[in-house]
Amino acid sequence: MTSTPPNTQPADDPTDVERPDVTIETRLAEDDLAGAIEFARSLHGAELADALELLTDDERAQILVALDAETTAEALDYVESHFRGDLLSGLPPDQIVETLVLEEDDVATDVIQALPDETASEVLDALPAERRAAIDALLVHAEETAGGRMTGQLITIDESWTAEAILADLRDVPLDVSQPFYLYVADHERHLRGVLNLRTLIAAPPETLAVDLMVAEPIRVTADTDQEDAARTLKQYKLLALPVVDEHGHLIGSLTADDLIDVLEEEATEDMFRLVGVNQEEDLRSIRRSVRHRLPWLAVNLVTVLIAAWVVSLFQDTLTRVAVLAAFLPVVGGLGGNAGIQTVTVVVRSLALGRLAVRDTLEVIGRELAAGAIVGVVTGGAVAALTVVWQGNPWLGAIVGLALLVNVMVGVVAGVAIPMALHRLKQDPALSSGIWLTTTTDLLGFLAFLGLATALVSRID
Amino acid sequence: MTSTPPNTQPADDPTDVERPDVTIETRLAEDDLAGAIEFARSLHGAELADALELLTDDERAQILVALDAETTAEALDYVESHFRGDLLSGLPPDQIVETLVLEEDDVATDVIQALPDETASEVLDALPAERRAAIDALLVHAEETAGGRMTGQLITIDESWTAEAILADLRDVPLDVSQPFYLYVADHERHLRGVLNLRTLIAAPPETLAVDLMVAEPIRVTADTDQEDAARTLKQYKLLALPVVDEHGHLIGSLTADDLIDVLEEEATEDMFRLVGVNQEEDLRSIRRSVRHRLPWLAVNLVTVLIAAWVVSLFQDTLTRVAVLAAFLPVVGGLGGNAGIQTVTVVVRSLALGRLAVRDTLEVIGRELAAGAIVGVVTGGAVAALTVVWQGNPWLGAIVGLALLVNVMVGVVAGVAIPMALHRLKQDPALSSGIWLTTTTDLLGFLAFLGLATALVSRID
Repeated sequence: MTSTPPNTQPADDPTDVERPDVTIETRLAEDDLAGAIEFARSLHGAELADALELLTDDERAQILVALDAETTAEALDYVESHFRGDLLSGLPPDQIVETLVLEEDDVATDVIQALPDETASEVLDALPAERRAAIDALLVHAEETAGGRMTGQLITIDESWTAEAILADLRDVPLDVSQPFYLYVADHERHLRGVLNLRTLIAAPPETLAVDLMVAEPIRVTADTDQEDAARTLKQYKLLALPVVDEHGHLIGSLTADDLIDVLEEEATEDMFRLVGVNQEEDLRSIRRSVRHRLPWLAVNLVTVLIAAWVVSLFQDTLTRVAVLAAFLPVVGGLGGNAGIQTVTVVVRSLALGRLAVRDTLEVIGRELAAGAIVGVVTGGAVAALTVVWQGNPWLGAIVGLALLVNVMVGVVAGVAIPMALHRLKQDPALSSGIWLTTTTDLLGFLAFLGLATALVSRID
Repeated sequence: MTSTPPNTQPADDPTDVERPDVTIETRLAEDDLAGAIEFARSLHGAELADALELLTDDERAQILVALDAETTAEALDYVESHFRGDLLSGLPPDQIVETLVLEEDDVATDVIQALPDETASEVLDALPAERRAAIDALLVHAEETAGGRMTGQLITIDESWTAEAILADLRDVPLDVSQPFYLYVADHERHLRGVLNLRTLIAAPPETLAVDLMVAEPIRVTADTDQEDAARTLKQYKLLALPVVDEHGHLIGSLTADDLIDVLEEEATEDMFRLVGVNQEEDLRSIRRSVRHRLPWLAVNLVTVLIAAWVVSLFQDTLTRVAVLAAFLPVVGGLGGNAGIQTVTVVVRSLALGRLAVRDTLEVIGRELAAGAIVGVVTGGAVAALTVVWQGNPWLGAIVGLALLVNVMVGVVAGVAIPMALHRLKQDPALSSGIWLTTTTDLLGFLAFLGLATALVSRID
């Protein structure tokens, strides 16, 4: 079961986010299991994979139990790797085995990693000995590393072989390996020496040696490389595949672009979600999961807004004298926070994409201060003018405008400093920058605004 | 200049976000142009591309004017496509021509699209006639479409050819085309009939016909398909390349995974930035660009917070009687807004990844309401308890807690409804969901809180 492209054109436009009227769900809802099965079998593996991901756990179990192993295996190839285990976990072990014997080792490993320990060993024991050995070799690697993502099935050749001999040899290797376009050159100890692509091989005169055709010392990653770093390397060098070596430089596997595209997308989703305190696995399907993932962040947020509330309460006398000041708290806090969040987002993403280094911190703060000053003067000036018109008090306008200018500048500086500091401390800047930022802008913004108002209270009374 | 992998292992770990101590910048700063050039030439094309992106416009112009066309062209292959024009725009036209003759058509087209009209036609006129024709054919497609991203250089075969004849033919095609592993089968009118990959070709008996080896009716996109939809198709079907046809089904080009990885990353960055009102091209390097891109969103934000301020001002009498109420405004507004932003982010990303359809709206709102109720009761209960301890007034605690519960539920419902409505209206939900959401939660949260407080003012006075 390999996913080597290209495949047959599907009936529906795959880019249409609206689903067709008749689906697996609608058929299951009508108790038409045979119809649902027939429909599932008519789909392209990639489409069935998408359809399965959108079903509820119950619906999925219902259809998969009744589906043949070939169709399930075809869909499994296209399911995102972290969802592969969930997909099969509802099936009886012998049906899991039936499906996995049709799969490549890396897909089988994804499934086994996600199964409960007992089921996992039952399934492993039922697999043929050589498959078990291959899967065991992959299981030692952590899931989110190059080793955990790679396939161990690749074609290795010796540098002394001729182009003609390699081509003859290739005719005997089964077609369905996941690395169809690259051959890896290794010495007798399996040290990676080079990579040879099929295009070069075909164009070469028959007697040319592999050593003269290969790219020597190719870019590689070690098995313990974080999957995101491996994906960045692949993207940076515009590679379609990336060899994986162990700590001694022995070739142990390879990663392909299609797997690493998933990694880059997952990581982008993760960063986006972390900025607002949501877990990557959030899928709008499970209420329990939603609550469990979002509540901790909101609880931290609760503490920080209560600190801000306490700061405001210190100025109770001023607020009693000039109650309208309360109306401007969301203006000063909100705009300062939003200006800062813009900076945080750009800095977090730039760090993730490797476009920013810690040594740039002061330079970037300088530029953000300049940009913040302009933005602060414009928005502060506009708020000041509107306040004068609305409340008829120029002092009040000046106080609101000045506090806003200060808070926008606080926001943009903190917007650089906080994620940079977290990055320097080897923390994920996406995870908590937002909450530290709004705490900072709320506190300092309210202090600046109410402090100024208290100092000038006789002017705005 | 093709980017076909794999390449030679670079000296430095490419995944290290810290830059080395000696760089192009440091050499330029020491006025050592020769040293900077020498260093640039020692880098891998991918590394030089990254280094060039991090330079200021002045530094970049300085080094590129002095660099040979081969090295520039090598780096240009690895530069992200929307940055290719910027890179060369500072050079004199004849130097641009020198670089572009070394490039493939799709890269040359990216550059020409970004040049000022006059320079673009001067450069085009100086290119050889056949290159000009190929580039003209690509220039008709909008930049962000499959047509604008594709290469027109591909290998086409006839379905009646034998494997042996195709292999013999391949030996004569130059190696550096961007589509090295797929051959496209087209009829005499260039209608796309099938795709044949090199692995299958090599394994086939010499007399087999292309028609028996190819995947018939392969997945394809039309030239006007949005680049993001093309990238999603490639990802969904786990393809490494995707043929592009015109409206009559004629094969006109092809897209590769390495190009579409860039598209997926750009789109993720764009969504992330749009949620906070930042433009995708924001790069922390240009103050003017920062201000121009961020100010409009903050100006809209200004209007919305002023509306919230106006709502608060309606309750001036209550606030004068119970000034401490002001302290709880950021609690009610902030937590409700943040709970809603969590939902907005998940919904926007799920829509972008095609995991959510408009028809799911009510179902998702139902689930979010349930999750919001739990989150609201927990946070509202905690705030109520802390308020009673702090202010010693159980009525005040109940009012704050209840308002918070209401506002969290408002936040999660609006967090689904707003991006879904924008999506339904064919607007980009990432672009303005955040601002509409916080406006909603501020307004309704303050109304609920101050309304309750006014109704019960005698209890908290």
